[in-house]
Amino acid sequence: MTSVANKVFVNKLVIASNNPGKLREIAQILAPLGIAVVPQSDFGVSEADEPHCTFVENALAKARHASRHTGLPALADDSGICVTALGGAPGVHSARYAAPPATGGGRDEQDRRNNEKLLALLENETNRRAHYYCVIVLVRHAEDPEPLIAEGRWHGEVIATARGSGGFGYDPYFYLPGFDRTAAELSPEEKNAVSHRGLALAALADKLRVESKE
Amino acid sequence: MTSVANKVFVNKLVIASNNPGKLREIAQILAPLGIAVVPQSDFGVSEADEPHCTFVENALAKARHASRHTGLPALADDSGICVTALGGAPGVHSARYAAPPATGGGRDEQDRRNNEKLLALLENETNRRAHYYCVIVLVRHAEDPEPLIAEGRWHGEVIATARGSGGFGYDPYFYLPGFDRTAAELSPEEKNAVSHRGLALAALADKLRVESKE
Repeated sequence: MTSVANKVFVNKLVIASNNPGKLREIAQILAPLGIAVVPQSDFGVSEADEPHCTFVENALAKARHASRHTGLPALADDSGICVTALGGAPGVHSARYAAPPATGGGRDEQDRRNNEKLLALLENETNRRAHYYCVIVLVRHAEDPEPLIAEGRWHGEVIATARGSGGFGYDPYFYLPGFDRTAAELSPEEKNAVSHRGLALAALADKLRVESKE
Repeated sequence: MTSVANKVFVNKLVIASNNPGKLREIAQILAPLGIAVVPQSDFGVSEADEPHCTFVENALAKARHASRHTGLPALADDSGICVTALGGAPGVHSARYAAPPATGGGRDEQDRRNNEKLLALLENETNRRAHYYCVIVLVRHAEDPEPLIAEGRWHGEVIATARGSGGFGYDPYFYLPGFDRTAAELSPEEKNAVSHRGLALAALADKLRVESKE
């Protein structure tokens, strides 16, 4: 350890997400670095707004919000699916692409409506290419001028019929030609090794390892 | 080439800087990728504000500004020196750390005043550690949700007496123990190979190479 003020140097991180799937993936990948993760909900912190047109600015806003309300270093991800034939939509609006259900129904119902909207828009479209994108931001404190930023992309195709029950979001329709399976048909380990979030977290872990040596 | 909408795919970039030293470094590193660079001043675009507390948001603001006013993909850097004993200052304020000269005098006079202020603050400080930081942002268009982002860090020490006449900014006082020279005593080629901006541009070039294969 040489210059604490200039390095990330964390052993505990608040995660600016309340999504159990994301929390599990993040915890698994950071555990070997000796970093424990705690969801912001444990501190009573609610989700921040995501008003920006870039993933990275939304992730920054969420990480800052979590750090400001806990006084701890914080990590946030922002991610989405970008469909070529739709000019990159739903993109940063992936989580709430369709109008939310009037009578509630939670994340699964929102996912169902999002996929319904996406498939309707692609009904007569032969170009089915899409990619998932994820950016991870880690801030040491709310005003950190040098947040660590890592990204990952995962290329595939949107198919018309759901396959598989794993993952979440658009996964059952996100087909990987290299696997001949959808993202929802991969095991968690298979998904973490190649997914947009897995790649971004691996890149972040590399940056943390470099930092810890400097 | 597979999915134009999802990739950077540029052969001409506007550079959101009017600093000849930066333009030269950027042009040298991107030329092998077949990318020509044009300064925004060629389009009559003036410098954007840098109001943010993070380097990456300032770089994004500058890249967007250049893209919006030219209709072309744009690249911006934001960089600075972060001094450990000063809690990371001058950081994002590096270019205008000291008050600007009342009677003009240009960049050299501003650099002289910045260094004077920095050395005065470090006069009785034994911890001289510092690092240069650079982040590069490339946007395909002003509303690009997935800008490419690359960063670089360069660790050294702030010494009390200027050495060398190369580089610019804080370079004559930025001492590299591994070279036993300051940044201002390195040749441009030596500096590009190891500097914060050189590393960030190399990382960006890697991302562009990956993009061009996807």
